[in-house]
Amino acid sequence: MATVTADAKAATGAERYSGIRRATERLCVPLETEDFVVQSMGDVSPTKWHLAHTSWFFETFVLSPHLEGYRELDPAYRFLFNSYYVQAGERHCRAQRGYISRPTVAEVFEYRRHVDAAMEALLESASGELLERVAPLVETGLHHEQQHQELMLTDIKHVFSVNPLRPVYGGPEEAPDEAVAARPPALDWVARAAGLYEIGHAGPGFAYDNERPRHRVYLERYALASRPVTSAEYLAFMEAGGYERPELWLSLGWAAVEENEWSEPFYWEKRDGEWWTYTLGGMRRVHPHEPAVHLSYFEADAYARWADARLPSEAEWEVAATDLRIAGNFVESGRFHPAPAGAGAGPSGERDGGPAQMYGDVWEWTRSQYDPYPGYRPPDGALGEYNGKFMCNQFVLRGGSCATPGSHIRPSYRNFFPPDATWQFTGVRLARDL
Amino acid sequence: MATVTADAKAATGAERYSGIRRATERLCVPLETEDFVVQSMGDVSPTKWHLAHTSWFFETFVLSPHLEGYRELDPAYRFLFNSYYVQAGERHCRAQRGYISRPTVAEVFEYRRHVDAAMEALLESASGELLERVAPLVETGLHHEQQHQELMLTDIKHVFSVNPLRPVYGGPEEAPDEAVAARPPALDWVARAAGLYEIGHAGPGFAYDNERPRHRVYLERYALASRPVTSAEYLAFMEAGGYERPELWLSLGWAAVEENEWSEPFYWEKRDGEWWTYTLGGMRRVHPHEPAVHLSYFEADAYARWADARLPSEAEWEVAATDLRIAGNFVESGRFHPAPAGAGAGPSGERDGGPAQMYGDVWEWTRSQYDPYPGYRPPDGALGEYNGKFMCNQFVLRGGSCATPGSHIRPSYRNFFPPDATWQFTGVRLARDL
Amino acid sequence: MATVTADAKAATGAERYSGIRRATERLCVPLETEDFVVQSMGDVSPTKWHLAHTSWFFETFVLSPHLEGYRELDPAYRFLFNSYYVQAGERHCRAQRGYISRPTVAEVFEYRRHVDAAMEALLESASGELLERVAPLVETGLHHEQQHQELMLTDIKHVFSVNPLRPVYGGPEEAPDEAVAARPPALDWVARAAGLYEIGHAGPGFAYDNERPRHRVYLERYALASRPVTSAEYLAFMEAGGYERPELWLSLGWAAVEENEWSEPFYWEKRDGEWWTYTLGGMRRVHPHEPAVHLSYFEADAYARWADARLPSEAEWEVAATDLRIAGNFVESGRFHPAPAGAGAGPSGERDGGPAQMYGDVWEWTRSQYDPYPGYRPPDGALGEYNGKFMCNQFVLRGGSCATPGSHIRPSYRNFFPPDATWQFTGVRLARDL
Amino acid sequence: MATVTADAKAATGAERYSGIRRATERLCVPLETEDFVVQSMGDVSPTKWHLAHTSWFFETFVLSPHLEGYRELDPAYRFLFNSYYVQAGERHCRAQRGYISRPTVAEVFEYRRHVDAAMEALLESASGELLERVAPLVETGLHHEQQHQELMLTDIKHVFSVNPLRPVYGGPEEAPDEAVAARPPALDWVARAAGLYEIGHAGPGFAYDNERPRHRVYLERYALASRPVTSAEYLAFMEAGGYERPELWLSLGWAAVEENEWSEPFYWEKRDGEWWTYTLGGMRRVHPHEPAVHLSYFEADAYARWADARLPSEAEWEVAATDLRIAGNFVESGRFHPAPAGAGAGPSGERDGGPAQMYGDVWEWTRSQYDPYPGYRPPDGALGEYNGKFMCNQFVLRGGSCATPGSHIRPSYRNFFPPDATWQFTGVRLARDL
Repeated sequence: MATVTADAKAATGAERYSGIRRATERLCVPLETEDFVVQSMGDVSPTKWHLAHTSWFFETFVLSPHLEGYRELDPAYRFLFNSYYVQAGERHCRAQRGYISRPTVAEVFEYRRHVDAAMEALLESASGELLERVAPLVETGLHHEQQHQELMLTDIKHVFSVNPLRPVYGGPEEAPDEAVAARPPALDWVARAAGLYEIGHAGPGFAYDNERPRHRVYLERYALASRPVTSAEYLAFMEAGGYERPELWLSLGWAAVEENEWSEPFYWEKRDGEWWTYTLGGMRRVHPHEPAVHLSYFEADAYARWADARLPSEAEWEVAATDLRIAGNFVESGRFHPAPAGAGAGPSGERDGGPAQMYGDVWEWTRSQYDPYPGYRPPDGALGEYNGKFMCNQFVLRGGSCATPGSHIRPSYRNFFPPDATWQFTGVRLARDL
Repeated sequence: MATVTADAKAATGAERYSGIRRATERLCVPLETEDFVVQSMGDVSPTKWHLAHTSWFFETFVLSPHLEGYRELDPAYRFLFNSYYVQAGERHCRAQRGYISRPTVAEVFEYRRHVDAAMEALLESASGELLERVAPLVETGLHHEQQHQELMLTDIKHVFSVNPLRPVYGGPEEAPDEAVAARPPALDWVARAAGLYEIGHAGPGFAYDNERPRHRVYLERYALASRPVTSAEYLAFMEAGGYERPELWLSLGWAAVEENEWSEPFYWEKRDGEWWTYTLGGMRRVHPHEPAVHLSYFEADAYARWADARLPSEAEWEVAATDLRIAGNFVESGRFHPAPAGAGAGPSGERDGGPAQMYGDVWEWTRSQYDPYPGYRPPDGALGEYNGKFMCNQFVLRGGSCATPGSHIRPSYRNFFPPDATWQFTGVRLARDL
Repeated sequence: MATVTADAKAATGAERYSGIRRATERLCVPLETEDFVVQSMGDVSPTKWHLAHTSWFFETFVLSPHLEGYRELDPAYRFLFNSYYVQAGERHCRAQRGYISRPTVAEVFEYRRHVDAAMEALLESASGELLERVAPLVETGLHHEQQHQELMLTDIKHVFSVNPLRPVYGGPEEAPDEAVAARPPALDWVARAAGLYEIGHAGPGFAYDNERPRHRVYLERYALASRPVTSAEYLAFMEAGGYERPELWLSLGWAAVEENEWSEPFYWEKRDGEWWTYTLGGMRRVHPHEPAVHLSYFEADAYARWADARLPSEAEWEVAATDLRIAGNFVESGRFHPAPAGAGAGPSGERDGGPAQMYGDVWEWTRSQYDPYPGYRPPDGALGEYNGKFMCNQFVLRGGSCATPGSHIRPSYRNFFPPDATWQFTGVRLARDL
Repeated sequence: MATVTADAKAATGAERYSGIRRATERLCVPLETEDFVVQSMGDVSPTKWHLAHTSWFFETFVLSPHLEGYRELDPAYRFLFNSYYVQAGERHCRAQRGYISRPTVAEVFEYRRHVDAAMEALLESASGELLERVAPLVETGLHHEQQHQELMLTDIKHVFSVNPLRPVYGGPEEAPDEAVAARPPALDWVARAAGLYEIGHAGPGFAYDNERPRHRVYLERYALASRPVTSAEYLAFMEAGGYERPELWLSLGWAAVEENEWSEPFYWEKRDGEWWTYTLGGMRRVHPHEPAVHLSYFEADAYARWADARLPSEAEWEVAATDLRIAGNFVESGRFHPAPAGAGAGPSGERDGGPAQMYGDVWEWTRSQYDPYPGYRPPDGALGEYNGKFMCNQFVLRGGSCATPGSHIRPSYRNFFPPDATWQFTGVRLARDL
């Protein structure tokens, strides 16, 4: 899974552990007890479950095997809070996570404290040899925790959105003023020459197993769009009948349009002739200059076809991103929503001439189905299930979103979702053959 | 719906109102906040929803139309807490009641206080004329509240049962000792002569519309079993291969056995060769002398066929019950589970020679599909939807259960559920042609 | 099942057997080989299957147990052509009858000849003692065959209707001319006094087990409509928004409207502002004076509520029908569609003052759920599954239809279908309390 | 779609047209009329439909647009026999192809004659200019026809297999004698060096659009297995608990195992302790030395993991196949089933040192999800829907099978099916990193 070759002591210090764990809990501040319980669809997990599962992860992969004398708080949690690791034993049915009122929220926080105390003791007092051994596991656990930070936000957004009261989670009280947020620059194309490139992770920092091994790929000459597609642009697609023209869609995509009666992006709704959208800050008018968001792969692909372009491959994306500074509208901005270009979410992430908003704002769908890299082998044991077993019927997304912790992302990072998923902060960057 | 011809003032006094409303809330004492939120299957509603819906009922049918100047606490509740009254406006999808974290439990209790304050003001200070007008509505609202008291218990039992932690709601800590609880008397038969009888409600007390009009039915000579079928007796059916012999079952019943893989009563499970069952007091060994409970109509019917008997018609049941004292193991006993005959749940309900345990313990399935009585007409308006529109594909049950408030039941009371329902306290009394 | 007390020899003579078997085959004359194979929905069976199953019935219940030395043509048919008799062994899945191309149609007719030869030999040469023994079985087999004659027509109608080519089976080339077919008489009401009546079959003729025992029922004063509801009358219900007003419908009925998107009777479709309907004679304009047909129970019930009336109970229907001559528009008319009153389908079936069209034209939904009569016991053995195990979630229909053989019907005849069934020739006769 | 740059006249001569069309019809010789009608699951089409759809293809894309004065035999066929071309108009629901008894089989053959007469007239008498124009369409139509020849066999195999009578289509009467069919050579590995290769079609012959453009790919060093996995080898996987070990499976693969209760290859069944399989020649004992067949991608992938290997990428496969002679056990062998290595299906397809049985016998699953090649653009118009819109959630298969016409296959040929498909002749060739 993880490979940590640098100073293990520093990388897994108790302080860093504690910082990431606290960040998870800070995301819960706006929530009422009841909010922690609900699972509003099969893909969503209750907040309570996220809090417990991330603790189970440390307990299962670090504490139980490596900390002598460690006692689980409750053996039943082994079953309740395992997500999908079949090699870690039986587990509770995913679709029924919302049926479980106990342990209570207070008890789940108690579980976190129990695990944290043991983890902190381990990290502070363990021998160098032990630390060396657990460092990659702790590192993976922390990245795992950060992934769940993002999921907590996307999941609670869904939970709130199906409630007719449309509760507010937080973020800016209003959308950026249209007059103030300057119209984004016209879409431009950033070209790359054909050639043999290398992608994938190598070197000292952390990366998931699925980013390895670094390997060569041959790319034809191509260009990436200079920024993501905006809501105004996507609206033009809608007004051109995009959702009524099957010839623009993949066959499965059109089936999804018909089955789900899609006619606009997820979370959008029309009120008195105007488009509104549910955000973590509540219902707001759709901002024309924001990156379009909550689009499925199918919608991204149909939009690209309509725009006489295509989606980039993940290699094309990575090659273009690899030299850019990793900065943008991440979760730390406190916006919890994509921002118009130049809306001030911090440094824009691009150098002169590079494509803008590659990091943060919206995960960008690539045309690449989620495949193993040449020579890929998952690690042995349960942690080998982290990524490898999902390499089927999913598409790769790149670059992180407004709900991603900034320290979680890197050029080689491969996120993946099925092509009909819409509840993540997913958007579109176009590409073209040259 | 309701007809109240007696002293309306007394019947609807603020004290009685308040007493029944408080009883609802007392049922919530053992619950944690999280427990109020969960809907563990489509038939179950969250406790929170029950608390709000019963308040909505008074608001919609009494306060809004009859109390001048009444202000709803939140107009959105009109939509959220309407159950199925299409004439009372649009309503939230039943299957999604568990997706709604807000209003919080505290806000729902606040809603109850808001409605109670208005109701108590109305009941205490309204003119005689107004009281006369609202009395039948208030009466219906109170019986409605009592129905939901029972549903709160059966629903929370289901919620707890799907949680691997199997939380305890309350009741006696242990099942009655088998040695102490005397083996119940052998099953005997209580005969009735053929003839023209009257059933249905008439006279001054409250009854639902579906119990009216009182009318004549001709019955052939028949006999009722002297007590309900016990767990030991039902176990004999199981051991005789009851769940593997399609010839014992209705065609739809056998389809239910196969689809649901039924091989024992709901809530039963085998541990180390012994039968256990989930009760509101937690997991317990099945007590052989208790009435068998949580049986579907299909199981009741198959059992009866195996036992060379049949289920009674509702007329047969009512004729036999009409002169018995209404007493038994109701919710007030605090057991929340059927009790062996003579286990001390208070007076047994039968006079010399009458069948025992007709009231309380378990609702008794009748072979009667839920039909309108001759001359039945539902009341006009939304309250006409209370009963009449459900007269299809349901079977009538009689006599109340260990979760029914004792003051809620009467000889003519018609409960009804689809033939595959198992999460209510439903059991079997046999009948025979003579 | 059947009880035959009259001259068994005459009743089961080879000639009668042969006549009914040939009638089945005559219904196949308009069909192409391909038509025999198709199962267009779960409720429909391929014609080929009907032809084989009715032969299997004689083989299984008469020949194999009672004709010494009888050899099945193919032992696999035992499995393939058993419908639902679990006591007669394993059987092929009902929903997959349309997946079976072999045996071919020719082989199925060969199977019929094989069974017929054995049956005719048995009926012509068996001893009186043996004939006495098999007579009730043969009689049941012949009534069973007649039931399947009706199903063959309703099933092939469905098969043809889902084919965009809309093939023609047969019948009159055109609907009766509206100008010629006199407007039916205004709807009138035929009253009956309250009292104790007897219903059910007794006496020498054949009846199914579910028509027995004859027993007393008490009826309040009521009236039956003088004729069935016509298409013009049903159209008025549609134009009054019948399919958009949930308050007119049973709860399950409204759910069926929404799920199936019902907005007109089955087989109707609008073309250029006019209503057309698929008939066995092909697509035709809806005739306003014909009895409305292919209505579900839910639609019949909603129509009655809208018309300020109700459906009759089966006892009310039988009491009114019992003295009428059994005549009407049956399958022998060759119309295969209900006819306007007085359209000349033969004698009208009513005496002066009796309700018209009680027999033939359309099966009439009653409000009675399909229950066992008091004292009912199914026969022992597999034939006991003929009726009894279906007494759940079905409604009783009375009087036969334009697809029923005239000799198959009688006053006590109880047909039954689930409340959402529409592919039979089912219509509405209203009733009222007085 | 197709690109034909060679002598168009020759390539599309009437003789070649007629030869391929007759080959389709020869496949129908063993069928009874009834066999043509049945659709035994959603993925299967009735033989009748294949015969008509392939004719519709020529009518729609060649005759109607290009042959002046052409008259369709029946305009309704435009709707009935369009498969999935949304740009060619509305079409009949795929899942209901088995509900259509008319046109009859004879009428469908009449339709073929009608189309053939017009096609042959066109091909024989058209001007060079017109021939140049239609040549690529005719070529595509003929390859399309050949694809359906294969599907007709796999579909009728499924239709027959669900019939308990297990009809025989044809082929050798018995499986090759185990004693005679020599044990296949031990599995060996054929290595390839790392480097930049070219794959995809270029040059004069026919290829589908999805095989273009030819382009460069970089491959790491790898090895392909010297022959496909045999039934005996697959049985070893089963006996090692392959179907009970989730850690061997993709996540969706394990879900498919559980949902479909897979525990052996499709068409296999155990009789008295021995494995049998349904073949087009009827039920036969599984031959240990035959290539394992009817495996889903999920099974192929799990087998490979268990065998400490992996599936090849499609580029790896093509690079290895490109110099081999195209020969093997194709449909022309008349076996309709994979054959043991060296069982005499003609020349083996490999040169010294090359992997064996790359062509024919079984389609070989690759690990490559079905993606567009770099620079791929589907043609304009309805024919652009032939391939491009399916590039989602499918995996590529290579090499053809025992049901593929030998002249239909080439090194660059990309077949594709969803990962749970099992009714095609699909098998496994292993690969390894070196």
